[in-house]
Amino acid sequence: MKIALAQLNYIIADFKGNSEKIILKIEEAKSQGADLIVFSELAISGYPPDDLLDYPHFIESCSNALSDVAKSAVGISAIVGCPLENPEQVGRRLYNAACLLEDGIVKDVVYKTLLPTYDVFNESRYFEVNDQFRTISIQGVKTAITICEDLWHEMDRFDYQDNPIAELCKESPSLSINISASPFNRDKIDERLKVLQRQSKYSKTPLIYVNQVGAHTDLIFDGNSRVLDSDGDTILKLSEFKEELAYIDLEDSQSFIKKEEQEEDDLNILHRALVFGLKDYFNKMGFKKAILGSSGGIDSAVVQALAVEALGKENVLAVMLPSQFSSEGSVIDAVELSKNLGNPYEIIPIETAYKSFESGLSNLFDGLSFNVAEENIQARSRAVYLMAISNKLGYILLNTSNKSEMSVGYSTLYGDMCGSISVIGDVLKTDVYNLARQINKEQELIPVSIIEKAPSAELRPNQKDSDSLPEYDILDGILKLYIEHQKGPSSIIASGYEKATVERVIKLVNGAEYKRFQSPPILRVSPKAFGRGRIMPLVSRW
Amino acid sequence: MKIALAQLNYIIADFKGNSEKIILKIEEAKSQGADLIVFSELAISGYPPDDLLDYPHFIESCSNALSDVAKSAVGISAIVGCPLENPEQVGRRLYNAACLLEDGIVKDVVYKTLLPTYDVFNESRYFEVNDQFRTISIQGVKTAITICEDLWHEMDRFDYQDNPIAELCKESPSLSINISASPFNRDKIDERLKVLQRQSKYSKTPLIYVNQVGAHTDLIFDGNSRVLDSDGDTILKLSEFKEELAYIDLEDSQSFIKKEEQEEDDLNILHRALVFGLKDYFNKMGFKKAILGSSGGIDSAVVQALAVEALGKENVLAVMLPSQFSSEGSVIDAVELSKNLGNPYEIIPIETAYKSFESGLSNLFDGLSFNVAEENIQARSRAVYLMAISNKLGYILLNTSNKSEMSVGYSTLYGDMCGSISVIGDVLKTDVYNLARQINKEQELIPVSIIEKAPSAELRPNQKDSDSLPEYDILDGILKLYIEHQKGPSSIIASGYEKATVERVIKLVNGAEYKRFQSPPILRVSPKAFGRGRIMPLVSRW
Repeated sequence: MKIALAQLNYIIADFKGNSEKIILKIEEAKSQGADLIVFSELAISGYPPDDLLDYPHFIESCSNALSDVAKSAVGISAIVGCPLENPEQVGRRLYNAACLLEDGIVKDVVYKTLLPTYDVFNESRYFEVNDQFRTISIQGVKTAITICEDLWHEMDRFDYQDNPIAELCKESPSLSINISASPFNRDKIDERLKVLQRQSKYSKTPLIYVNQVGAHTDLIFDGNSRVLDSDGDTILKLSEFKEELAYIDLEDSQSFIKKEEQEEDDLNILHRALVFGLKDYFNKMGFKKAILGSSGGIDSAVVQALAVEALGKENVLAVMLPSQFSSEGSVIDAVELSKNLGNPYEIIPIETAYKSFESGLSNLFDGLSFNVAEENIQARSRAVYLMAISNKLGYILLNTSNKSEMSVGYSTLYGDMCGSISVIGDVLKTDVYNLARQINKEQELIPVSIIEKAPSAELRPNQKDSDSLPEYDILDGILKLYIEHQKGPSSIIASGYEKATVERVIKLVNGAEYKRFQSPPILRVSPKAFGRGRIMPLVSRW
Repeated sequence: MKIALAQLNYIIADFKGNSEKIILKIEEAKSQGADLIVFSELAISGYPPDDLLDYPHFIESCSNALSDVAKSAVGISAIVGCPLENPEQVGRRLYNAACLLEDGIVKDVVYKTLLPTYDVFNESRYFEVNDQFRTISIQGVKTAITICEDLWHEMDRFDYQDNPIAELCKESPSLSINISASPFNRDKIDERLKVLQRQSKYSKTPLIYVNQVGAHTDLIFDGNSRVLDSDGDTILKLSEFKEELAYIDLEDSQSFIKKEEQEEDDLNILHRALVFGLKDYFNKMGFKKAILGSSGGIDSAVVQALAVEALGKENVLAVMLPSQFSSEGSVIDAVELSKNLGNPYEIIPIETAYKSFESGLSNLFDGLSFNVAEENIQARSRAVYLMAISNKLGYILLNTSNKSEMSVGYSTLYGDMCGSISVIGDVLKTDVYNLARQINKEQELIPVSIIEKAPSAELRPNQKDSDSLPEYDILDGILKLYIEHQKGPSSIIASGYEKATVERVIKLVNGAEYKRFQSPPILRVSPKAFGRGRIMPLVSRW
């Protein structure tokens, strides 16, 4: 049995585009003599379709597209993910289904059992749980088909009641297939491999794993589809972050040569994930050109370098917006950065705009001293400039906030928090430095002076981040425990952090929910990013 | 059996405050000779606690607070809602529980079966489903206890598999109790009454229904707790939008006098809901003073009137920020409004700030004509002024966008979309007019000229909303079908709207997801508000 793994990039609700792409690959696989081609979870609609699933005409479009695709499955079997209506009158209206297409029709369907409903996942919101387990015969091969989370029975968050693999293995299948839409984070590739290894060993069958690739705003799907043999060893691995069609022949012993698992460099994969996420966001939105405020600091420098890599140097406009508090070095560094990267840049001093606000407010603010209000006027004047250029010339504003400052609210709402997408909003400051060094690995793109100077928002004379915040290695350590690992203060203090610092940081994080509520979508690269995967009350005594 | 219904306003994670409040009411009820006092769903933690439930030390705090509260339940029984750990190793870590407190301890617990996971509800994200059904004896009375959604088995969205009421009624209880945290919307009060009537008739018992009261940012809980007799008639009704402790004696036939159901005026209840929502948001945040941009248009006028009612006239600062495109009438109308309402106001022309941006951009924009970029500079300059005053003087910015403009993106991100909370972002423009008339019912607070003039953003000469948008009655009709009723274009066209208009409106709505993503939280008063209850992909071909 020759099987094609189709790791593709879908667009949500693009029924025409998705179907055409699928049909093309079915034809290509057929021409290569494949018996079966496997596509990923909800390939027809794209994943995640979110509340579009509440629209009956969306489901109708899915069903029409599925019929169209089925027509091309003649002389070959295909497995395609698609939302399907629940035929029963009880329970949720939909199933998350894997459809077996043969002889031009939908021959059989398998429903998803384990519906992830945590972090960025909302599947119980839409889908009914499957509780019927049976293998399916594909070209005479008894096959256990599962969908994404179905493999993740013993994940550490909690244990699901049903174990689809255990149920299916009672029928002793010869082949296992899992179709997925499993989003990237920096821990995910390893974690996922362990799950796949455990399942192929348990079922004692080869395991075909097909994941989607592509970014959907905040969520980045890395692909990394694979075939494992029944010992849990990888015998075929598809690429990260790109579309690919690959084949495995289960009758050919040459197929069963074990591949060495390559240890991926974490920073390298983080770097590639961010570039891919940004690029695919622009592609799918139909955007070409980006703009950002280039302060001469490390955050905007890293975002600028990533943007140049993702979009091309000619498509990234860096704008330096110095105020009277900006050091001369900042503009010099920012100019050098743009020269190194080769992107166009503009310098627009904001002092005049700032002064006009100051004078408009002089009566109201009479006798009151300079404070955060004046600092924010600067950040917001910059945003007005950047958005005006964006509106006039069609550049899309990139947000350059990092996760550490997003966590503690060290940022100005409607100022530096503006942007269409946040590129490094899920990267802690210490990792922003690591990324900068990674970017400079072969060549000094980011001037060393940017990396080495003490971080500062430059909104008042001689300001340093360390005036208001703990040192970043301390801050980031606490943030990781509190945000990613849900540890409480006593447990964080027990890990060796100072009580007063821990309590202060937690208070800052909780107090900044209202700012994050209005932040742009953030490319998700950690197991717990701000955004859809972390729903917090805005008003609480937490 | 004398039962106290405790309809209270909790603060999320305020374990000390919530416990003290509960204990005080237990003591009060005991002193009034009550046998049982009933509190609402998740009273200990406040509802909805969202992802705080993921924090083990949050659950520990819930459990400690519950023990404290239990100690006061001596000589009286109490039912209190609280998240509890799932004692089993399988399934979700928590249950949504109703705890029976007696003799100073937690005597018994009942878990919630139907976990709402749609619209603003996320309960499957946290809680395990109950599948054990038994009545509980309280002071010798066989009682069927359910939690909120448990009553809503046959709601029209979908049918749940289990029906807790049917299961419990197999044991022929003499009394039914439901503890709830059921948020308000304009359809909800009627809908909820029907559910209560159906259930008390089905169970042939009196039904004690205790709902929480209070606003939690976007969600407004109206209270409206009740007692129904076994015929489904209301024999006791608590207030909307305020805390109350009320008693019913089940042995006293005088208690069983049916109350006339009063037909509530929809606009009156909408008006009260918005005032209450705003007021409680400020109370819980510890805010006193509000600021808003007062344009002389209907939206800001209605928000200003509501804010004055909620916060007091001395606490609302109206700022007129005319540009060179503002009509003289607008400032005159806005001043008259502030004079009618008696709140302080300021006039700050934005032309100087606008011109400073224009000159800073003159090289880049050379030869390009006035367009949306310059319009947005005005809206964003206003936001800079308003936020500066907010930062300096501690006023909280109110967003004044209505639902119609939020729907079609007729608003400026980081401009008029700014604010800590959106007061009328879930009210369609046609209802904003109705609200204005409701506000003016006894006295002309909002100048008639504001109500009667053609709506305009006044961002370019002679601009009218109707230049860019269909008339509001048409627009709102389409929006209601598309957003609240999830109708597709063909179905909306079949209701009598013009094809081109329907297609244009839907395109505008879908194209504005990215703006709404960054909008402030919106007081929810419709069955489908923008915000947490409507999760849409930002990048799609929808």
